[in-house]
Amino acid sequence: MEKITLTVLGMSCGHCEKAVKGALAELDGVGDVSVSLADKTVTIEFDANKVKVDQLKEAIEDQGYDVQ
Amino acid sequence: MEKITLTVLGMSCGHCEKAVKGALAELDGVGDVSVSLADKTVTIEFDANKVKVDQLKEAIEDQGYDVQ
Repeated sequence: MEKITLTVLGMSCGHCEKAVKGALAELDGVGDVSVSLADKTVTIEFDANKVKVDQLKEAIEDQGYDVQ
Repeated sequence: MEKITLTVLGMSCGHCEKAVKGALAELDGVGDVSVSLADKTVTIEFDANKVKVDQLKEAIEDQGYDVQ
């Protein structure tokens, strides 16, 4: 598993956290996901053989947030 | 129908708006509900014979927001 921390703008509350985590959890190859609303970050464990960083970003953006 | 505008703190995004509207819609006697995130207000049409203002406030508070 690899780990990446993305800066994600627009997450304001627990619902946002849940939306982002839920979208990432649907992707095959995604492990643990942690969100910091204060730091505006999403840290994702993932298997690079199964899922690409672009797919992670896309899943977050599809929920309506900006990945920097 | 009567109409009341409550000041509600802690609503930060569209998910919050949806949570508040959904909780109020479940109450018998509640009509149109509009939320302004910018103004921190929730305006509720309701039938005072069917539902009391305290129940409206409680439904919002149960979603995790503070009614002033």
